[in-house]
Amino acid sequence: VPDARPPVPPAPDGLLAALRAVVGEANVVVDADVTAGYERDWTGRFVGRTPAVVRPGSTDEVAAVLAACTAAGVRVVPQGGNTGLVGGSVPLAGEVVLSTRRLDDVGPVDELAAQVTVGAGATLARVRAATLPAGLDVGVDLAARDSATIGGMVATNAGGLRALRHGPMRHQVVGIEAALADGRVVSHLRGLLKDNTGYDLPGLLCGSEGTLAVVTRVRLRLVPVLAHRATALLAVASWADAMALVAGLRRVLPGLEVVEAVDRIGVDLVADAFGIRVPFTPTPAVAVLVECADVRDPLDDLAAALADRAEVVDAAIADDPQRRAGLWAVRERCTDAVATLGVPTKLDVTLPAAELAAFAVDVHAVVAAVAPGARVVVFGHVGDGNLHVNVVVRPGAGSGAPPGPDPGADVHERVTVAVFAEVARRGGSISAEHGIGTAKRGHLHLVRSAEEVAVFRAIRAALDPAGTLNPNVLTPPA
Amino acid sequence: VPDARPPVPPAPDGLLAALRAVVGEANVVVDADVTAGYERDWTGRFVGRTPAVVRPGSTDEVAAVLAACTAAGVRVVPQGGNTGLVGGSVPLAGEVVLSTRRLDDVGPVDELAAQVTVGAGATLARVRAATLPAGLDVGVDLAARDSATIGGMVATNAGGLRALRHGPMRHQVVGIEAALADGRVVSHLRGLLKDNTGYDLPGLLCGSEGTLAVVTRVRLRLVPVLAHRATALLAVASWADAMALVAGLRRVLPGLEVVEAVDRIGVDLVADAFGIRVPFTPTPAVAVLVECADVRDPLDDLAAALADRAEVVDAAIADDPQRRAGLWAVRERCTDAVATLGVPTKLDVTLPAAELAAFAVDVHAVVAAVAPGARVVVFGHVGDGNLHVNVVVRPGAGSGAPPGPDPGADVHERVTVAVFAEVARRGGSISAEHGIGTAKRGHLHLVRSAEEVAVFRAIRAALDPAGTLNPNVLTPPA
Repeated sequence: VPDARPPVPPAPDGLLAALRAVVGEANVVVDADVTAGYERDWTGRFVGRTPAVVRPGSTDEVAAVLAACTAAGVRVVPQGGNTGLVGGSVPLAGEVVLSTRRLDDVGPVDELAAQVTVGAGATLARVRAATLPAGLDVGVDLAARDSATIGGMVATNAGGLRALRHGPMRHQVVGIEAALADGRVVSHLRGLLKDNTGYDLPGLLCGSEGTLAVVTRVRLRLVPVLAHRATALLAVASWADAMALVAGLRRVLPGLEVVEAVDRIGVDLVADAFGIRVPFTPTPAVAVLVECADVRDPLDDLAAALADRAEVVDAAIADDPQRRAGLWAVRERCTDAVATLGVPTKLDVTLPAAELAAFAVDVHAVVAAVAPGARVVVFGHVGDGNLHVNVVVRPGAGSGAPPGPDPGADVHERVTVAVFAEVARRGGSISAEHGIGTAKRGHLHLVRSAEEVAVFRAIRAALDPAGTLNPNVLTPPA
Repeated sequence: VPDARPPVPPAPDGLLAALRAVVGEANVVVDADVTAGYERDWTGRFVGRTPAVVRPGSTDEVAAVLAACTAAGVRVVPQGGNTGLVGGSVPLAGEVVLSTRRLDDVGPVDELAAQVTVGAGATLARVRAATLPAGLDVGVDLAARDSATIGGMVATNAGGLRALRHGPMRHQVVGIEAALADGRVVSHLRGLLKDNTGYDLPGLLCGSEGTLAVVTRVRLRLVPVLAHRATALLAVASWADAMALVAGLRRVLPGLEVVEAVDRIGVDLVADAFGIRVPFTPTPAVAVLVECADVRDPLDDLAAALADRAEVVDAAIADDPQRRAGLWAVRERCTDAVATLGVPTKLDVTLPAAELAAFAVDVHAVVAAVAPGARVVVFGHVGDGNLHVNVVVRPGAGSGAPPGPDPGADVHERVTVAVFAEVARRGGSISAEHGIGTAKRGHLHLVRSAEEVAVFRAIRAALDPAGTLNPNVLTPPA
């Protein structure tokens, strides 16, 4: 197979030597066999080339690497665990890769403050391994926890499984240290919960996708580990009922932590593919999974709250781990079940509460208009308005038959444009959790006005006037 | 008494006519008797003059007013309820005042989303009057609720009485509309809880003190009204014990909403001034007030949690409103009690959890070194590390004797500098809630590095290159 990637651009004279002087010979990687692992994203959709992967071991080294690259006019892509889904951390145009993975120090857990200071390169799993023995946890959790780094989670404002209760990564960060493109360092890590002394740089860097600065250390707030959980799987008759249920439960269950939903097509698909069935007949229009966590067993509170809700057609409820896992299975196996049909177009969108139900119904007609015969499966974090729309344009026969063929990039794009346009028409967002990256830059205009994009550009130019940092992401090409 | 204020600078030719064309004759106020109310802050410490108070009635009018002023080279001070404490909303150098108070529309409460969209000029009390009948409340509450506007609370990132549970204003804002200095408008009001499509402009504008844009409308998340409350007043032996108590209770009381503290001097002063006594003998080193709120009576949970804490020397606990009010009285009357001694220097500071107790002890020696004989009273929102340090340099005799004289601005400043230096040495912040305004600009360097201030300036210049907006606040004079 010929290598379709662009050729490796040579590094300017002297840059590699300057970088070696900063981080040491061993941490400037130019061997193509090794750099290959940094040039391709997790999905395999985004592949580029780099003249060098630089692995600084301290904030000062990050700063010196950035200063050297900016001085040489060389652009830089920061990379953490490289688990993103929008091509935001790979060198698509011959950039130097700055890997943060050596910045993996995890400081002592400050139990008095319920906080910890960690290096940007520490994985979420590593941080939790340090905090859980103290009865404290990070407020954000996600499936990529063993690879995703805290710095990457900050840069993408990761959401994950608990955002309904604890908010996204932006709400966990109480201090930040970062290096600017010109080598200056800003550091504010004392973990002050109230600190009205200037603009909120931690919040600005959260979700900035590596375009404003390279995060080197983060002060995280921690949440108490809640030992008791109760889970319910519910049959409801419509997406509108699911939304009304969310609104009702939020008022009476302060311990509400998760509200997920799967539509009928998804429920049937999981049963068909894996024999995992919901305990309801017939299959409900929407299956809703609800979980509460508290310092004591929340089962009775959850049962009482559900008994008051007219939207609940049928319910199964559990507080023991094994039966709870059984209730979770239908939601957890959705992605795998879709893959048995064929290669999906996966869209991570969010809608205003008042628009979500109508969108979840109408999206079928929207897709049918551009891809007749496609299967559309809708599931996601309905508690915070976040839906994952999965479209398989050429589905296989199902029930163990081989999955259908990949319809090709053009068809994925046609479906994407149609669904995003519908999302935008209803005031939603084309990226709930994943960010814009390089994948969605061309669609940003659907949800952000020219004035907003101009403000983004102005802020970007203010912090990185030379344009060193992650040039292929977030703002569209000028 | 001669008027010591600077003379009113004349408005440039044509500007007033242009402003009248935008907002109408009646909303460009030049009558000195009327403008006087906009030229003086709530404390009376900050007084200036303005050539005109402009009162736009819509976002488009705000934008046109700003565009006209920027084009004329005239600077603008945005003003909401004018309840700030740091001189951030008055025209100190002859700026035009842009009053947001006519932008007081309160939209329908979106019960499905638990959100509401309101004009920047709506007071907090007005917004709550609309949401409370729906069983929903704003997550931030503060004493100035009848005058403070939502726009001003956003601009200052107000904290208030519930920040421990719900976070500051920045955590309540899920969408924002604002006019830039050149008249462009950015608007993103759909209330999406997850929306990773660019930099977090709502978070950036929160706490920006009117220097980046004028907020015109805000989309607020709302929290359920919790009908049941339990309150405890506790005797503890030291500030260190108070901090350990906070950390312990936070882990086992998900419904914890308030943790306040008053030191022995404050407790005795409230007893001396108003006959309000804590039910403990002798007076404890620190009195801690704890409150939980839940969907059912949290009294038993609170009592059980307190029984497990060795730091609690003595306790009084209540769940009925009348007895709860009695427990609150010692904390609520602190400010009035201090005023009976004389004119205080009032400092709103915050410390890292690990430093707070030592600071609260050492601040007495720090003050004594620069103001021998001064009385120092420490109280505040200890649950989130926020202390109010009150220093009366020339106290009266107490017990109904007349308060001592105001020692004068020089002495206030000497005490301020000494306390701020100690706060900075311990990694704290010189403004927890109040902001920098004009009052603390000169002290910003104590807690923000030159690199941080440079980044603030760069962001400010990016959004307001002409320097139109609130020129006397936040960043120090260049």
